[in-house]
Amino acid sequence: MKVAKFGGSSVASAEMLQKVASIIKDDPQRKFIVVSAPGKRFSEDIKVTDLFIKLGEQYNSGQDVEGTLQKITDRFMSITKDLDLSDEIAERIKNESKRLLKETSNSSHLMDALKAMGEDSLARVLSAYLNKIGLDATYVNPKDAGIFVSDDPGDAQVLEHSYDKIYKLREKEGIIVIPGFYGYTEKGVLTTFPRGGSDITGSIIAAGIEAELYENFTDVSSVYSINPAIIDEPNEIKFLTYKEMRELSYSGFSVFHDEALIPAFNKNIPVCIKNTNEPEAPGTMIVANKEEYNGPIVGIASDKGFASIYVSKYLMNREIGFGRNLLNILVEEQISFEHAPSGIDSMSVIVRSDQLTEKKEQRLMSRIKQELDVDYVSITHGLGMVVIVGEGLSNRVNVAAIATTAIAKAGVNIEMINQGSSDVSMMFGIREEDINKAVKSLYLDFFESAMVVR
Amino acid sequence: MKVAKFGGSSVASAEMLQKVASIIKDDPQRKFIVVSAPGKRFSEDIKVTDLFIKLGEQYNSGQDVEGTLQKITDRFMSITKDLDLSDEIAERIKNESKRLLKETSNSSHLMDALKAMGEDSLARVLSAYLNKIGLDATYVNPKDAGIFVSDDPGDAQVLEHSYDKIYKLREKEGIIVIPGFYGYTEKGVLTTFPRGGSDITGSIIAAGIEAELYENFTDVSSVYSINPAIIDEPNEIKFLTYKEMRELSYSGFSVFHDEALIPAFNKNIPVCIKNTNEPEAPGTMIVANKEEYNGPIVGIASDKGFASIYVSKYLMNREIGFGRNLLNILVEEQISFEHAPSGIDSMSVIVRSDQLTEKKEQRLMSRIKQELDVDYVSITHGLGMVVIVGEGLSNRVNVAAIATTAIAKAGVNIEMINQGSSDVSMMFGIREEDINKAVKSLYLDFFESAMVVR
Repeated sequence: MKVAKFGGSSVASAEMLQKVASIIKDDPQRKFIVVSAPGKRFSEDIKVTDLFIKLGEQYNSGQDVEGTLQKITDRFMSITKDLDLSDEIAERIKNESKRLLKETSNSSHLMDALKAMGEDSLARVLSAYLNKIGLDATYVNPKDAGIFVSDDPGDAQVLEHSYDKIYKLREKEGIIVIPGFYGYTEKGVLTTFPRGGSDITGSIIAAGIEAELYENFTDVSSVYSINPAIIDEPNEIKFLTYKEMRELSYSGFSVFHDEALIPAFNKNIPVCIKNTNEPEAPGTMIVANKEEYNGPIVGIASDKGFASIYVSKYLMNREIGFGRNLLNILVEEQISFEHAPSGIDSMSVIVRSDQLTEKKEQRLMSRIKQELDVDYVSITHGLGMVVIVGEGLSNRVNVAAIATTAIAKAGVNIEMINQGSSDVSMMFGIREEDINKAVKSLYLDFFESAMVVR
Repeated sequence: MKVAKFGGSSVASAEMLQKVASIIKDDPQRKFIVVSAPGKRFSEDIKVTDLFIKLGEQYNSGQDVEGTLQKITDRFMSITKDLDLSDEIAERIKNESKRLLKETSNSSHLMDALKAMGEDSLARVLSAYLNKIGLDATYVNPKDAGIFVSDDPGDAQVLEHSYDKIYKLREKEGIIVIPGFYGYTEKGVLTTFPRGGSDITGSIIAAGIEAELYENFTDVSSVYSINPAIIDEPNEIKFLTYKEMRELSYSGFSVFHDEALIPAFNKNIPVCIKNTNEPEAPGTMIVANKEEYNGPIVGIASDKGFASIYVSKYLMNREIGFGRNLLNILVEEQISFEHAPSGIDSMSVIVRSDQLTEKKEQRLMSRIKQELDVDYVSITHGLGMVVIVGEGLSNRVNVAAIATTAIAKAGVNIEMINQGSSDVSMMFGIREEDINKAVKSLYLDFFESAMVVR
């Protein structure tokens, strides 16, 4: 049995839903279907979920909501009309939204309930359409599917006992269509996952039913080795390990929500990223272990918005506890750190800049100065990170040489290197404005140069 | 005014002392002379200080000391005889040693007093010889010179108020000869510096009298860029900054005791390493800032005996405080760390292996496992460090590329890289057995290749 999840762009229109239905029909193993809410059809389009958020915000600030509600129902109406389905689902949205606005007193519960209605309605539409074309399909609400979550509106975590309940779904006949993005607390309150949470639902269902494969249909035929906005038609990744995927998504790859894969990962279920518009393409397989390597690295990710806290103190290396004391101040200020390179008499701590307000920065500097009696402390913003990712990379003799040479050829200075703990990644700190230059040069040398043994 | 310090090999024999005298005579600015105890004359020879240590150990374990004491007096007797001086100083050693053994009840005070007698006696010999050849020279005991130190036998630190007293030495007429290696506590107890401490005495005197130059006479004409045991006739360093010197000596260069330069450093006094056997050679100047660069790096140091403590825990990066908590356990176990690279789900801490007994290692592992609830923890020994050192190195685009390429060419895998805090050094962790290969290759590429712009 397979779980197939279809993202926002795959369900954005009647035409796309017809492609989805045909993909489902093509493979009888595609028994569990998870859907997002309709996404953008063209670049200026508005995602249905964003319309629902607007609706909630308008209501909370006492504005008229009729216009927005009409836009949402029109959007669904055009889909059901083109699919030759009844107006019932679109009408239901109107009535259900009005009921929620009237009856829900808790504003975060209201917001979650509204946000979830895009996925919920689309699941109903798809289920109806599958029936119409002669397939045995049933809409199943996440509560009935068994998705129980923590009481964190907008940031729910699945509860462990969900999986036993979900496993029982295997017994159901026909195709099961489940809306993504939300579950229910033990008290029965609808609560959403973090944004991008339909991937999480798909992953949870795949883990729960112990799927042989979790197919994640999106609008690209593959995960690329590098952001296609930087290099045209970059190398397609055929196989990725979970670890590689996790490093890539953590460091700025936007294919997956950072932790969406965890449930599938824990149950060792392979994941395939596929394209709804080109379902015959093999896509990218994400697996626990891979046997084939295409080269020393699989991808290059990058991210901006880092700051370096630099501290120097003569004879620092003689002082047992200095590093602990410095990190302790950061913990007390609720700042998490990414990396902490050190010299004999100095130490730097790399953190995400968005954790530092101007006031917090001032307090941090004066605390470090006073409590640690340092000679000098400074905070520099505008640091970017470039990460090269590849299973076993730390054991390949020339990876560091190829990478640092490529960055040097781009005329980019390396401010810091983090290598030594992860065997899957190597991280370079450079100035933000140099990221594209460095990434391009790395791509050329790792993926297009004859120098690299694949 | 200059301070000239002569090391153990420079004062090992009458012949060497004649060279020393002629060096002093050559430059009237060489007014403050600091001496070590006689060192080895040939490779199987025994240093006088080691003989004194043996004497103390024999006495403490109730053995007969006559043989050792005779060896020491014979050694000095042969020097004074060849210099045509009286036997008085050699006789004094015998009497003074016996008096100390009889009168000193505290065994660490006794050991310090015995250890210091090599320097003390040699200063008396040199002073007498300078007088004999017509120079106005006076032996000055460290107590009279004003060297006051902390009460840490064998590991004394100079007390700040010493410098005012030392400054007054400037008023004395003629050449002042001071034995290195020791000072006196406030209570008047003779206490030695850490081994190699004659360099420290020279540095303290240079700082105290505000010397224009601190000349450190040894048996090499220059500091080399690399250990000459690895490469024949390596590049000579003309100028080194304090920072570069500190990084090099910390990472395995044995020219200087790690912190000997601190007093001179604090007073901004230039230091010159010179050769007693070739005093006309310019030597190596150690300065606060240098204007000329010979290349991107000045030297390559290496050291063995490191261990890596590797810890992995899924979703570690979500846990604020993990790094602090890990380092906290190390602090509680009194272990200082050198470097701590980190990944998303893992962190490594590099420490010196000699801090870990088997028992401590077991306790450390079980504490980390239990208190931090990690998935996996391991400790790997046999790690070596190779450090490249050069002022401004972190701002030179291609240094990391040249270094990593050189190491890769040697077929050596880089286990970790520490770069990002010090602007003077870049550190590579490799297997101990690969150190020589890596260092050789780095030397060839940085110092002998036409690729590097100097």
